[in-house]
Amino acid sequence: MNPRDPLQKVKYSVRCVDAYTLAARTAPVKLNQNENPYELPESIKRGVIERMQARPWSRYPDFDPHELIEGLAAFAGWKPEGILAGNGSNELIQALFMVTVGPGTIVLVPEPSFTLYSILTRILGGESMPVLLDDQFQYDPVDLAEMSVAVGATLTVVCSPNNPTGSVMEPADVARLCQAAPGLVVVDEAYHEFSGRSVVPLLAEHPNLVVLRTFSKAMSMAGLRVGYLLADPALVREVNKARLPYNLNFVSQTAALLALAEPAALRRTVDTLVAARESLFLQLARIPGVKPYPSQANFILFELENADPKAVFESVWKRGVLVRDVTGYPRLGRCLRVSVGSEEENTAFLAALRHALEEQRFRKEE
Amino acid sequence: MNPRDPLQKVKYSVRCVDAYTLAARTAPVKLNQNENPYELPESIKRGVIERMQARPWSRYPDFDPHELIEGLAAFAGWKPEGILAGNGSNELIQALFMVTVGPGTIVLVPEPSFTLYSILTRILGGESMPVLLDDQFQYDPVDLAEMSVAVGATLTVVCSPNNPTGSVMEPADVARLCQAAPGLVVVDEAYHEFSGRSVVPLLAEHPNLVVLRTFSKAMSMAGLRVGYLLADPALVREVNKARLPYNLNFVSQTAALLALAEPAALRRTVDTLVAARESLFLQLARIPGVKPYPSQANFILFELENADPKAVFESVWKRGVLVRDVTGYPRLGRCLRVSVGSEEENTAFLAALRHALEEQRFRKEE
Repeated sequence: MNPRDPLQKVKYSVRCVDAYTLAARTAPVKLNQNENPYELPESIKRGVIERMQARPWSRYPDFDPHELIEGLAAFAGWKPEGILAGNGSNELIQALFMVTVGPGTIVLVPEPSFTLYSILTRILGGESMPVLLDDQFQYDPVDLAEMSVAVGATLTVVCSPNNPTGSVMEPADVARLCQAAPGLVVVDEAYHEFSGRSVVPLLAEHPNLVVLRTFSKAMSMAGLRVGYLLADPALVREVNKARLPYNLNFVSQTAALLALAEPAALRRTVDTLVAARESLFLQLARIPGVKPYPSQANFILFELENADPKAVFESVWKRGVLVRDVTGYPRLGRCLRVSVGSEEENTAFLAALRHALEEQRFRKEE
Repeated sequence: MNPRDPLQKVKYSVRCVDAYTLAARTAPVKLNQNENPYELPESIKRGVIERMQARPWSRYPDFDPHELIEGLAAFAGWKPEGILAGNGSNELIQALFMVTVGPGTIVLVPEPSFTLYSILTRILGGESMPVLLDDQFQYDPVDLAEMSVAVGATLTVVCSPNNPTGSVMEPADVARLCQAAPGLVVVDEAYHEFSGRSVVPLLAEHPNLVVLRTFSKAMSMAGLRVGYLLADPALVREVNKARLPYNLNFVSQTAALLALAEPAALRRTVDTLVAARESLFLQLARIPGVKPYPSQANFILFELENADPKAVFESVWKRGVLVRDVTGYPRLGRCLRVSVGSEEENTAFLAALRHALEEQRFRKEE
């Protein structure tokens, strides 16, 4: 090997990983990233811009974003010294994994679920072990706890509601899992607002519980990248060592702070999307050959019993609606995922889907 | 040990690390973080705010920030596929270290230098080995190359101009180091604009060279957190696996893009600060008992030959000027670091320093 070959010094565990990717597509109706179709109230946006105009951009953000942390503590109901804010919850997942995962450590990850957990585990040299959801893509908490003990998992990850299936692990089951697990239990609550459930109240009793949350979904701030982590203060101090200084720019900090001050706006958006999700589910269930899975998030996974999901994905896209092709996920070879959009967007999606299925049926009959 | 103790699962290498910290102090004249005293032109800021008003905040930034990468490529003179943009250069240092550093790997780090390199190395389980700068805090390139070969360093870090000493490694010496080093040579060019030198032209010839840059210093954007990494495209593809998706919020992306379009504004700021640095150096050198070190950055390290640096730090702060207490760095027990500010700020600093030294002399004579 050429001693100047720069890849020579890249860890073998990294060379084996496929990068997290997303094909760059756009469409008039974008239902592929579980974004919120409703914007923050104009008053909040105006407030952010006013503060931007009043503050020098050349100065670093606070070393620790105290004001935001206090706001998050009041909002979530947990101690400020047990909270870290980050550049999206992804950054805090990364910091948590950096301080706990290395060669020899085992991370239990639900399957199918968000792929970042297993990518990070493997980059850090740890072993990512899948725990299968049941045949309806529901968690089996007893199985998960037994597995966690059997393999001595350093981290047991629970994404709840789970992306891309929408399934939830009930807080009582998470509590039992925390009791049983030999390591940390990491609950990713990116979509919790749409489920009406949270495990944050369990933090006081379970020092091995870590909760992750984001402003990218219910909070309408995917463009600004804000997330937070809640855990025992002693653990937070360790995770904080891997949090980069000044990780959260001042604009995103300001927007998060102002958004927290208007919980009623958030509530309205969530209520609207939950109602739209239930309606979308019923309409999907009525389409022959389409099997939607019940969801507690702002998206719905659906199986195409007869049609080719990739062909349907393309056909829907040609009619201006972009959904998520999840056929590359384990066990989801016949599935697509659609985010819950505005009423008009959901209507456009359903029309495009019906058209795509007609097209497919017609082709088969030819 | 309590099996529920959450610290039990934190890696030993992490438990031993002290977090990167900065005491939260403020002052009317803030010369402690090497920030730029001059803001971006108003026209750029207006452009950013106009684009913010025209774009939904609830939508994710581009998966890959193509437009910004193209702009950086034109600006820096390197191929777009060899560039990554990140949430400050810190994030890209972290991504680079994640894919290369693990138990058993050795990272050579200049001493004294920016502490983040060694913190990240240790968190990832690698070994950070210091390479001493000479007694004038200059690099010894021959020594560094020999050391790199002797220990088989995975990464050899060169911060140039070096923080907090201001010393530079000449590009010709970096080229020789790249030839000799068994691993990657990482040049942190956070302050390069103030030195008039860059090793980016070496990238084409040296695939084991990695260059890091930031918008936080010369580019007046510390509040927005933008940095970039330049390297061989094959290496960039591997580092990209540890870059988090959507790592750069849309506001910071927009600001960076618009700032790149106005290089003349940047040039003026840099020229002003370089002239101010030279003037500040001469004035410091004229004060008895103060030994400033020559700097190619936007800060000056100075030694207090007779006075207690901590007492001087406090006295200067009481007069409204915050500098950086670097006495905790190895070999800098008698030193402080001051950022180059505006003319008024530098004058205020010099007056406060002279006053502090008078005060000290007076106390000693008592």
